[in-house]
Amino acid sequence: MQNKPFFPARRVFITSAGSVVGQKEKRGPLGERFDFSGDDRFGKDSWEKAEAEMQRLSLGIAMRKAELVEGDLDLLVAGDLVNQCVSSSYGLLGYRIPFLGLFGACSTAAEGLLLATLATASVCRRCAAVTSSHFCTAERQFRYPLEYGGQRTPTAQWTVTGAGAFIVSSRLGDAQRTTGTHVPEILDVMPGCIVDRGITDAANMGAAMAPAAADTILRYRDSGCLPDGALIVTGDLGAEGSAILYDLLAAKGLEIRDRHTDCGLRIYDRDPADAHAGASGCGCSAVVMAAELCEMLKDGQIEELLFLGTGALMNTAAVQQGHSIPGIAHLVHIRGTKRDAISEKATD
Amino acid sequence: MQNKPFFPARRVFITSAGSVVGQKEKRGPLGERFDFSGDDRFGKDSWEKAEAEMQRLSLGIAMRKAELVEGDLDLLVAGDLVNQCVSSSYGLLGYRIPFLGLFGACSTAAEGLLLATLATASVCRRCAAVTSSHFCTAERQFRYPLEYGGQRTPTAQWTVTGAGAFIVSSRLGDAQRTTGTHVPEILDVMPGCIVDRGITDAANMGAAMAPAAADTILRYRDSGCLPDGALIVTGDLGAEGSAILYDLLAAKGLEIRDRHTDCGLRIYDRDPADAHAGASGCGCSAVVMAAELCEMLKDGQIEELLFLGTGALMNTAAVQQGHSIPGIAHLVHIRGTKRDAISEKATD
Repeated sequence: MQNKPFFPARRVFITSAGSVVGQKEKRGPLGERFDFSGDDRFGKDSWEKAEAEMQRLSLGIAMRKAELVEGDLDLLVAGDLVNQCVSSSYGLLGYRIPFLGLFGACSTAAEGLLLATLATASVCRRCAAVTSSHFCTAERQFRYPLEYGGQRTPTAQWTVTGAGAFIVSSRLGDAQRTTGTHVPEILDVMPGCIVDRGITDAANMGAAMAPAAADTILRYRDSGCLPDGALIVTGDLGAEGSAILYDLLAAKGLEIRDRHTDCGLRIYDRDPADAHAGASGCGCSAVVMAAELCEMLKDGQIEELLFLGTGALMNTAAVQQGHSIPGIAHLVHIRGTKRDAISEKATD
Repeated sequence: MQNKPFFPARRVFITSAGSVVGQKEKRGPLGERFDFSGDDRFGKDSWEKAEAEMQRLSLGIAMRKAELVEGDLDLLVAGDLVNQCVSSSYGLLGYRIPFLGLFGACSTAAEGLLLATLATASVCRRCAAVTSSHFCTAERQFRYPLEYGGQRTPTAQWTVTGAGAFIVSSRLGDAQRTTGTHVPEILDVMPGCIVDRGITDAANMGAAMAPAAADTILRYRDSGCLPDGALIVTGDLGAEGSAILYDLLAAKGLEIRDRHTDCGLRIYDRDPADAHAGASGCGCSAVVMAAELCEMLKDGQIEELLFLGTGALMNTAAVQQGHSIPGIAHLVHIRGTKRDAISEKATD
């Protein structure tokens, strides 16, 4: 591989985002920032249908904010954790937009932004990236029936009930019409390699994913692209995975503790710590990026960030067959570009 | 959406392909064409590990044919039918190549070629697309334990045990070094929309996917891009789905019967018809494209074809919860370009 990020040939912006969450997320520290919240069912008769409904709602919100209709979008990329990614296919089948399904586990928000960037920089005007997770669909699919009431270990994380949608556009006119003083602009992207360090504990996803995050950050540094001041935001390493990441990077001479945060540590109150090591799931990084980070980029509160979606590429049968759990981390480099600066040189 | 295909900004070629199959596929009409075959285990102790091993082998074969090593590939896109696409992540984790996971159900071979085209035309030198399916992993995940010996209905299809890998390159030099008089060149691609026509019979995937294939073909025709002479090749509609496709298109004034074939009707002998309505699975269209169609393009036996990967975007829980089965069909337009014509104007 060329050990360097992919640079889009055209300028690419996140022109709007939508976030939908459940009750526990609504009660957390970011509660007021989310666009919409519901109970665990969102008016549907199963959790799986509720998760699909969250995807539908989040894309609708993002499109409404950007004043777009279906015909304005050339491509939709989406994925989730449910077997065969049906939250995406059922949630989004009402939209008549060409659709590409992704599977990136909890890295899907970043994988979606990455592919939306490649598509928008080359063949699309605008592309939407959507993802979701739901505590109840994930628990019963990956762990135990909820009624069983299984005890959770300290390294376990809590799957976010939430969906996030992003509109990625190459149109300068779209960027000019956004709210805020700045526009989130995607400068470059770097897909991760699969990294397997032999973790077999399915209740410690942070440990399984941290080596992948370290691998991508080090590849990015070694490409000469790591900006000094940029905030580094990982998707859902949680407390355990973040600590491991610091150690792995320190061993390679890179100290990020003072400029790192993890989406999994931002959604729930840490005390009482019933979320244990933090939040996780595709929805975790998606809703933090959509509701908090994009807004901080737009306000100029964050100048530049590296968004690293982290995922564990396993299923229950593989773990039961004795496989260890490989991780992956995709990087999206985003800057808050002054809106005035875009409009000055704008020709669409 | 812009109702037109995506045209790559650079020329993009399929410079090699690898195919790996099981015993039943080896005994079929294309048996001699496949690169490698094994039993149902491929030396592993589970069918899931065998499927992953097929992916590993198929990519290795494709790389060897093109005389490439890991460092020559900038991106790997892959997906499969197993929950959370673990055949791809476990099968390919030994390759240190940036990886993006896909979920397109049985349309994955086409989705992979489509995304490889977009990436190769913009940011990559070369990209590999890999996919697989395995009769035994699919049967026990989607239907019944094999030991149960459930009866199959006439519309049921037989999941192919097979994996296919493709190297997609934008380097004219790579195209010159291929075997054959012609080089498969990807001219344009069109991602499908999700189409749900209310099919609820999980043993009739052909009927669930045919409306999606018709939708993509009609969108392609309406974009003014449908070439008169091109062969139309669908992924795994089988006998039932192909008949439905003809009817749906005829109702819109398009007759394709005399220039259509379906990969699902090419792998197994039709008599004795124990494969019922034909073959299916991600591996079905992948191995037919890799072993037969690419070779026919290279020999000049096929001048031009539209490859339509067809997929049913469902899981068992969704069907049990009463959902109908949505389909999708992604189109890849491929021409056999004379190798001499490429080398004459080649500057890499």
